[in-house]
Amino acid sequence: MNKYIQDTHAHVLIWLEEAANMIRESFTEQLIIETKSNFSDLVTNMDKSVQNFFIQKIMEYYPTHQILGEESAEQFKDTNREHVWVIDPIDGTANFVKQQDHFCILISYYENDIGKLGYIYDVMNKNLYYAIENAGVFLNNSKLPTPPAISLQEGLVSIDVRNWYGKASLERLATEAFDIRYFGCGGIDSIHVITGKFAAFAASIAGPWDIAAQRIFAKELGLCVSKFDGSDVNYLKGGNWVISNKAAYEDLLTIVKEF
Amino acid sequence: MNKYIQDTHAHVLIWLEEAANMIRESFTEQLIIETKSNFSDLVTNMDKSVQNFFIQKIMEYYPTHQILGEESAEQFKDTNREHVWVIDPIDGTANFVKQQDHFCILISYYENDIGKLGYIYDVMNKNLYYAIENAGVFLNNSKLPTPPAISLQEGLVSIDVRNWYGKASLERLATEAFDIRYFGCGGIDSIHVITGKFAAFAASIAGPWDIAAQRIFAKELGLCVSKFDGSDVNYLKGGNWVISNKAAYEDLLTIVKEF
Repeated sequence: MNKYIQDTHAHVLIWLEEAANMIRESFTEQLIIETKSNFSDLVTNMDKSVQNFFIQKIMEYYPTHQILGEESAEQFKDTNREHVWVIDPIDGTANFVKQQDHFCILISYYENDIGKLGYIYDVMNKNLYYAIENAGVFLNNSKLPTPPAISLQEGLVSIDVRNWYGKASLERLATEAFDIRYFGCGGIDSIHVITGKFAAFAASIAGPWDIAAQRIFAKELGLCVSKFDGSDVNYLKGGNWVISNKAAYEDLLTIVKEF
Repeated sequence: MNKYIQDTHAHVLIWLEEAANMIRESFTEQLIIETKSNFSDLVTNMDKSVQNFFIQKIMEYYPTHQILGEESAEQFKDTNREHVWVIDPIDGTANFVKQQDHFCILISYYENDIGKLGYIYDVMNKNLYYAIENAGVFLNNSKLPTPPAISLQEGLVSIDVRNWYGKASLERLATEAFDIRYFGCGGIDSIHVITGKFAAFAASIAGPWDIAAQRIFAKELGLCVSKFDGSDVNYLKGGNWVISNKAAYEDLLTIVKEF
């Protein structure tokens, strides 16, 4: 890894600790909760504060970089993609509000559309996962192995359940996969694929900030990432997507293609 | 709590620590995994060892007591119910095998069909939840409050997803509840209702060992437990069941009744 990436990584580690502390300390205060697109799409004052914190830090150190954040997506211009940050300050806001657990911070850094650094911070369990291009994937500074091959029939598969009712894909998945799970936080569900605990995670709806970091992890570990139709995921667009163990991917795709 | 219950509780706490250590230490050894009713219904040598450990301890201290254990259900005689233990040595065996996390030990002690002591031990997170009749619910010896009122529309609901495809209940739950989750371990999913993180957990299939402990927690905290049709759960029979926040229960029941 070059000096620029090494320095950037060092900065992000410090920012993440500070942001995670802000979030953990917020549980003693009253949250301000608003809804976005529908009654179960929540945003809190903490989503906004944590995002502003990251934007401020990035602007301080890297004033020319572009930032795509969940809570400020409209300000992003994709014409210059030399240095792009993608941020979800709190992925799994509903879990943050309802459980005070099972949410994470997602951050990634791209240069000319190539993923350089990806971070998934499971805040309450203090587990920081990160991926560095061509250097591998780490959990709290210990290198993680490539997960073993897990077929669909042997593997747990996570899906955003509420969007699957009435779908033929749900029946097939229920009968062809080992079993179904759902934490309700794309970052946490993805971590279970990254660590070989799930065969796959398939989400019918996702923002770019729900995908951008995980793509970098997947590349380092030989996991498959694509849209439900098998085409490439656009890390600046979002949509449906899967992250899957290689041994489960082809079988999974025959199922989600019908979604 | 009388001296007998107090002494029994003290014994169980010691047994649980020993059993949890056995389980945690087992991860360094090769598991022997077999299937039971179908390819995703697993049992391991550890389920059997842990159950035998509890049976041995109970027989040593309480030789006249009856024991209903998941892995030895056929040996149970329900004609004498003066002192009954119900044991699931590893609830969530699939998670134990696939994730090495999100499973638990479930134990309860009943006298003449009245729940006296219930235990849910989240082994990997070292969180021991227990309920004592008329004394309340505790997490690692701290008393837990009654969860706040959570309506179905505000609350996360956990279901055994794979059994719900094609059911009208799934569509209604997906549109009427706040959102759907599933850890895949009845004990862990129930804990989230007990601690006010979920509004409810509804399982379409469960053994008595999946229900008996939780009933005691529910009674102490004013949570609702019933079968899908609203009738009482038989702690020695099993079947479908819900554990629900009181504020979500009536709405939930109109949905699961149609299952």
